[in-house]
Order: sequence, then structure tokens, then C-alpha cells
Amino acid sequence: MNNALNPAFAAEIQQSFSRQSIMQLIGAEIGRIEPGIVEITLPYRTELTQQNGYLHAGVVTTIADSACGYAAYSLMPAGSEVLSVEFKVNLLRPAKGDKFLAHAEVIKAGKTLTVVKSDVYGVSGAAGDQILVASMLGTMFCVRTGEGDT
Amino acid sequence: MNNALNPAFAAEIQQSFSRQSIMQLIGAEIGRIEPGIVEITLPYRTELTQQNGYLHAGVVTTIADSACGYAAYSLMPAGSEVLSVEFKVNLLRPAKGDKFLAHAEVIKAGKTLTVVKSDVYGVSGAAGDQILVASMLGTMFCVRTGEGDT
Amino acid sequence: MNNALNPAFAAEIQQSFSRQSIMQLIGAEIGRIEPGIVEITLPYRTELTQQNGYLHAGVVTTIADSACGYAAYSLMPAGSEVLSVEFKVNLLRPAKGDKFLAHAEVIKAGKTLTVVKSDVYGVSGAAGDQILVASMLGTMFCVRTGEGDT
Amino acid sequence: MNNALNPAFAAEIQQSFSRQSIMQLIGAEIGRIEPGIVEITLPYRTELTQQNGYLHAGVVTTIADSACGYAAYSLMPAGSEVLSVEFKVNLLRPAKGDKFLAHAEVIKAGKTLTVVKSDVYGVSGAAGDQILVASMLGTMFCVRTGEGDT
Repeated sequence: MNNALNPAFAAEIQQSFSRQSIMQLIGAEIGRIEPGIVEITLPYRTELTQQNGYLHAGVVTTIADSACGYAAYSLMPAGSEVLSVEFKVNLLRPAKGDKFLAHAEVIKAGKTLTVVKSDVYGVSGAAGDQILVASMLGTMFCVRTGEGDT
Repeated sequence: MNNALNPAFAAEIQQSFSRQSIMQLIGAEIGRIEPGIVEITLPYRTELTQQNGYLHAGVVTTIADSACGYAAYSLMPAGSEVLSVEFKVNLLRPAKGDKFLAHAEVIKAGKTLTVVKSDVYGVSGAAGDQILVASMLGTMFCVRTGEGDT
Repeated sequence: MNNALNPAFAAEIQQSFSRQSIMQLIGAEIGRIEPGIVEITLPYRTELTQQNGYLHAGVVTTIADSACGYAAYSLMPAGSEVLSVEFKVNLLRPAKGDKFLAHAEVIKAGKTLTVVKSDVYGVSGAAGDQILVASMLGTMFCVRTGEGDT
Repeated sequence: MNNALNPAFAAEIQQSFSRQSIMQLIGAEIGRIEPGIVEITLPYRTELTQQNGYLHAGVVTTIADSACGYAAYSLMPAGSEVLSVEFKVNLLRPAKGDKFLAHAEVIKAGKTLTVVKSDVYGVSGAAGDQILVASMLGTMFCVRTGEGDT
């Protein structure tokens, strides 16, 4: 449905993701990258938890926000940069799971602002059962830095 | 203005904070703890950044959310637990600074729900100049687990 | 997917809606009522507009919020009351149309809190083309008033 | 603290407000207009209520949103237009009162985006006691239409 304006979007997202040091610190990896859709996964680790052993809401937000930003970026013209303007997160259930998946999808791409939602799932067991633990609705800003490279 | 219902709130917040493993991973420390007000500080480290070297919005959210949760907790009766229901964060400026300060303050404490705001400042230089980088408005839930200990 | 706990939910929603005086003032009508889903429609009128002749964001919110509240109510036990805790609205496009449709759907029903999303569409022309103008993500509170009637 | 860039901002806000038909329908009036601060008042009327006789959350939002929009506009250059990007509202108490006051204040004015908060108070009795019923945190967009007149 969505068309990428920047043919190099996927490689640029990979590169940008690898420069997000926080992703290495928490152990997150980028998965699916398509026009308007990006997914990030994160294995559970006790270092990432709040007082009850669940993933901290801020960590849930960290992967949801990066997924949203890159989903927005995937539809921006070449030479753009993406910034998070704001997001709202509803924490639906305790963030339990063997790993976590943030699936972000553009709702409306605009020239300057792109609205994105991201659902975060806890993934458990051999069967990979998914349960929705949080939902983000956010706004991303497109900074246009000229033609060519980011 | 606000009265603590739980005389042990400050010690319990300290204890709970020390069980939030993510706080150690990122290097955050809890500071001011008063009825309805909690502050968390976080020194800048390159491991915590997004692709441009600023603190990742998810890390900003991590300290803002914990500060909000504990500010709400400080006004809850003994034997409560606090959960984040939802929050919204506006990212106002690039999160630059030598360290960061999340200052959370209860707006309205209720029996079940407490609404809290948290402002996050970048703190720079010998003079400790503060600049507002993000503002959170969130809702916390009080789980009542009985009388006595958390 | 969702099961109604209160067999009278549809009639009670109709009744409650008819007591929301603001709905008559603006000319809104309730449409689809199913477990977890409620729709409200609103014909365009110049009395409802902001300075450029589009539906005011507050009016968009008014129908989205009532749709969310009743969608949540449809899954609550008999004898409940519903209150809006909070909502966030992203305004995606100018609110143009011959009429407007707020479609609300429960994301997660809980004992006390229910999270609901509502999409508001502008509906235009003989073909009834729909364009998404706003998206709400909100939290509703269940007040339990005892057994039996609301 | 804030400086107006457009010397005609107050007159332009008055004019724009008078073109917001919804304000006349609900009976709202604009009050204080200063650089970065705008207030809107609304007398209670039963036509504006939800099922329990309180002001509907959508009406609370209507005055809060317009107050935010004009507070943002007051700091924009001449020839701008303001659009609401998004807002989040926490409904803190039942919206009771003889009248309601939405007080909006700019948190951060930017070239394109301005972040504003608005508190809505119920005002009651001869003494005009104010109680906070809702808090909005929102983002406004500056459309630059050229030099000179709006």
C-alpha cells in the first residue's frame, strides 16, 4: 500500500539501527523492514526489568519507539532524518515473555509528520505464542537535510 | 501539600528502586523522595544513545516512568504496589547533557489511579544548567495487596 | 471474540446515549453496538466547526470518546458505570466530510481498566468514501455499583 | 518570558475565535490572551453534558484544545496558521462547576511544532473556587502561509 520514496531505505535503517548504542546495550535486533512497517525483537534478560521481574515499561517503549521511527523513515525521501515528536503508550499486561516483538506500522505518512502505531508482544514457549503487552501511538518528524545521503 | 499514608514510603521506594535491574544497567540513581515528588538522575553514557549521540527517547522515558511510578507510590497506603497504566511523552529538544534529571510530581492522587507528570532535564556544565528535554503525563495504578509489607 | 457479560448491554448503551445531552446538541447518533465495538455518526454542520470550516478537533473527540466509552461498557458486568480516564488523539487530516463516523473497538478489557481505540472517518459523496481523520487511544474505568441495574 | 513575533496576535486570535462556530454553539468565550498564554471560559449548561450531568469530556477537550491552539498561535510569526497535531487529556475529576476555565500555556515554542499544556478547572460558587478537572498535553503545528495577513 505504501511506496518507498527512498530506494535505499532498508540499508539506511540497518545502518542507523547499528548506530543506536542503546540497542546493543539491551540486546535488541531489527527484523522485518518494509515500506511503512518495521519490527524489532528483544530477548528477555533480567538486566532489563522492573521490581517484579517484568520488562520495564521504558524498555518496552525503547523498542516500540525505534520501530516507529524507522517505520516512518522507510517512507521518507532520501536525505531525511527522523525524530520522535511524541508518543503515548498503553501498558496492557505485565511484560512477560522469552522475547519481545515491537511491530510498528505507519498510519499516516505526511510531508513533515508521520503518525505511527506500534504493538509490542511478549513471545513465549516453543510455539512462539504472542500476547499483546503494550500499544504505542506516536508522531515522527521528518528533517530534510538535502538530497542524497543521510 | 500531599500527605503520605505510608510512613515507610521512602525506604520502600529505595528498596524497590534497587530491585529495578534496568536502573543499574543504565546507571540511574534515585534522588529526592518526598510525598508526591520523586527525582531520578542519570549520567550521560554513549551506550544509552540513539543514532545521533543523544539519549534515546526510550531511556528518557525509562527514568521519567520510574520517577512517576514512585511519586505515585509515595502517596499510596502501606501494602500497595504501583503499575504504570499509560504515559505520553513529548520530546521537546535533543536529549543532550552531562546528566539527566527526571522530576516527577503527582497531579492528582486517587484511590485506584494517580495522575503524575514528569519533566526531564538535560543538565550541563559546572553550573549545572538545566534544559527541559521531555515532558511526561501518565497514569499509575494502585494495587492493594493487603495490610503491611509490600 | 469478545463476550458480553451483561446481556442488556445494548439497550443500556442506547439509554445512556440518549441521556448524553451533548449528543443531541451536536446531532450525533449511535449506530453499531456489539460486544467490544460501538460506532457513532455525526452529520456535518457549520455550527460544529473551527475557524477553517472543518469539524473542530473537540467535536471529533466528543464522538470518539463516547464511542470508546460505550465499546468498553459493552464488555463490563451488569451494574457497572464507565468513566473516561484519559485519551490521546492524533489528528491526521482536516476533518472534512458530509458526515463523520467514529468506530471504537476494545483492545484489552480488564476488570477495572479497559483500553479502547477509536478511528474517526470523514464520509463523503454518494459512494460514502471514507477517509481516516483522527485516531484515539484511550483508557476507560469500570465503576461497579452493585448487582443489577445501572 | 515569551516574546510575541506577531504584534497583531491578540486581535487575530479574537477574530479566529469568533469564526470557530462551535464556540458559539457551546457558549464559550475567550478571556486572557498573552504571549504564550490563552484562557477560554464556558458556563455550565445541561446541553453540554454526558449521562451523569457532568460536562462531557469532549467539551472539556474542545475548550482545552482551542486554548492550546491560540496559546501556540500567540508566539507564531505573522501570516501563520495553527493546526492541532495531537493531544492527550487526563480526566482527573467529574467535570462539575458553574463554569469552566481552560488555561493554556506554551511549554516549548518551535519553528514548526509548539508543545502546549492546558489545565481545565471547574469554577463554583460566589467565591469562584477552582478545582482541576482535566489536564491536556498537546502539540500544535505552524503552517506558514507567507508574509502579512493570515
